Amino acid sequence: MRRLRVELGDRSYPVFIGPGVLEKAGKILANLGFSTPPVVITNPLVLRLHGQVLLASLEHVFGPVPVVQVGDGERFKNQTTLNGIYEALFRAGADRRSWLVAFGGGMVGDVSGFAAATYMRGIPFVGMPTTLLAQVDSSVGGKVGINTARGKNLIGAFHQPSAVLSDTAALRTLPAREVASGIYEIVKCGAIRSEPLLRYLERNLAAVRACEAPAIVHVIQEAVRIKAQVVARDEREAGARMILNYGHTIGHALEAATGYRRFKHGEAVAWGMIAAGLLACAMGRMQVEEAERLMRLIHRVEPLPPLRGISPARVWDALQHDKKFRDGKLRMVFLRRLGQPEIIDDLNPLRLRRLVADFLGTADERR
Amino acid sequence: MRRLRVELGDRSYPVFIGPGVLEKAGKILANLGFSTPPVVITNPLVLRLHGQVLLASLEHVFGPVPVVQVGDGERFKNQTTLNGIYEALFRAGADRRSWLVAFGGGMVGDVSGFAAATYMRGIPFVGMPTTLLAQVDSSVGGKVGINTARGKNLIGAFHQPSAVLSDTAALRTLPAREVASGIYEIVKCGAIRSEPLLRYLERNLAAVRACEAPAIVHVIQEAVRIKAQVVARDEREAGARMILNYGHTIGHALEAATGYRRFKHGEAVAWGMIAAGLLACAMGRMQVEEAERLMRLIHRVEPLPPLRGISPARVWDALQHDKKFRDGKLRMVFLRRLGQPEIIDDLNPLRLRRLVADFLGTADERR
Repeated sequence: MRRLRVELGDRSYPVFIGPGVLEKAGKILANLGFSTPPVVITNPLVLRLHGQVLLASLEHVFGPVPVVQVGDGERFKNQTTLNGIYEALFRAGADRRSWLVAFGGGMVGDVSGFAAATYMRGIPFVGMPTTLLAQVDSSVGGKVGINTARGKNLIGAFHQPSAVLSDTAALRTLPAREVASGIYEIVKCGAIRSEPLLRYLERNLAAVRACEAPAIVHVIQEAVRIKAQVVARDEREAGARMILNYGHTIGHALEAATGYRRFKHGEAVAWGMIAAGLLACAMGRMQVEEAERLMRLIHRVEPLPPLRGISPARVWDALQHDKKFRDGKLRMVFLRRLGQPEIIDDLNPLRLRRLVADFLGTADERR
Repeated sequence: MRRLRVELGDRSYPVFIGPGVLEKAGKILANLGFSTPPVVITNPLVLRLHGQVLLASLEHVFGPVPVVQVGDGERFKNQTTLNGIYEALFRAGADRRSWLVAFGGGMVGDVSGFAAATYMRGIPFVGMPTTLLAQVDSSVGGKVGINTARGKNLIGAFHQPSAVLSDTAALRTLPAREVASGIYEIVKCGAIRSEPLLRYLERNLAAVRACEAPAIVHVIQEAVRIKAQVVARDEREAGARMILNYGHTIGHALEAATGYRRFKHGEAVAWGMIAAGLLACAMGRMQVEEAERLMRLIHRVEPLPPLRGISPARVWDALQHDKKFRDGKLRMVFLRRLGQPEIIDDLNPLRLRRLVADFLGTADERR
């Protein structure tokens, strides 16, 4: 089991990574000073697959633990689910000294974290992410929130967890596309900060895809370390944290243009990284060899859902509604070299629009 | 115009107090670094009485300012109103660089502040309280939130304003009970921290009741200074901030037991301070002369709504649901002397229950 620390002053917290972390959850949390039972927020699938291990561990230490189940999937990341959690907390008699465990994927983490941020003006929560994507991405950084009819994550807060427990054994039950979705975010971490992490992935991809320790523990640890460093310098996303959005500008636009149905988030980011590489090459800002190396690695992970049939006009429309679109100028993260990001904010919109259309028309054939 | 500073590290902010502050709002805020127009959240009454002055000042500096109106009164401090604000912000095109002005009483401040805390994970807001109670109490300290069917302020956050502008000229349009409600909170500040403030109130009560400068400016400034000092030591209400709850334990119970209809918040706190004084005397923890001095001042402000007909059982029931009720033990703030609070957490529940019943039965006659 590895232990890292996300350094955020008096909001710093430890991250535990390894196979069997859930079995030790009760003991780990008691060592961190928790003494009363938490309320566990999860979904039916996670509860069925991994609930027994976690609850036995928690109840052994804290006594009976109330469990609140929420719907499974991004479409439940809304105010109705949030209100259901509030109501369950009231019924369980939760007060300002209560604490939550967010036990599941990114959706459970986001909505439970936001419930924790706002219940009685904020109570602690512990993340126990059970998907690779949540272990490497959403569980670190304190971004919590819900979607509205107007868009994703439009209501939310920054609320740091008190600890994150990432059990890599839980990943063995994930479908391949779900694992791949997490690997693409690890690729992103390497792309913006660590060429050695990319090399490690290239050499150990089979073990990582199978979620085998020690490979999976190593890459999660590296991704969390990289994300934690960036977040530590820019907790509230004023600037530096922007580099974590590599691949996300076009990735988000692809998700929006396909109604959030065709791609998993990581898959859309994978296409977004490929697009950003090709744009950078076309603009003479990145060497073709480096862009191709990244693209090769991405395509080796799993087959990506194709881009065919996606309307360039809808992608462009989504890009223009991006939060990073400032006063008509789109900011994007490019890579000068692998591991060296740069933020470009003077993109020519007409040129970008043409390049995006070209990319959509040709990317499927390039695979 | 007086200027104070609430010291909270990188969340510190200035408070401007005086007649005519709203006329200068645009200039004051431009000096603080704001450069784009805010979205103003207010209610129809405040907009009609004071809107022209504020909007002229803001629009002179920032250009056209969108205004969002919410219902007037505590019963509108709910999720429906909050969602209405979110929706208005989306329609106005508000993004992460937008900011809000909370222009009205405590309800507008609480719900607008919570909208600011959660819109796109948090945007800045400026408080422009127009009631005396909001100027001396809720506008300082960063507590924001909404009520639910389960109780008051159960959903919320700590989100500090970027500045507070308190125009004492706006107070001249308030009904006498509304002014009194604010004066009781000023009395509370004196009771917990400043015997000289109590003396000033005793000597200048007529001018304070008439909201005349310089008396009203002086007492607001003192109350804000006291609250800011306490909040600076305990931003998230871990301990020291508890003394601000003097009179609130029984005050809240009286409000709850009468369905939040009989008393204004300050009036309930006034009765709560009287009750706390009598309890402390009965327990030999406070000199009768000091309790009576406080009681005399409170009764001089305005006639308080009577206590008759309030069921001791319902008050006791509400006390037991108080957030300050820990493991069957009720914590209450008493005064050792005027200006010297102490927190008592080993109250004997049976004795307290009997004393509360006695108080309800006899307080009306004591007036």
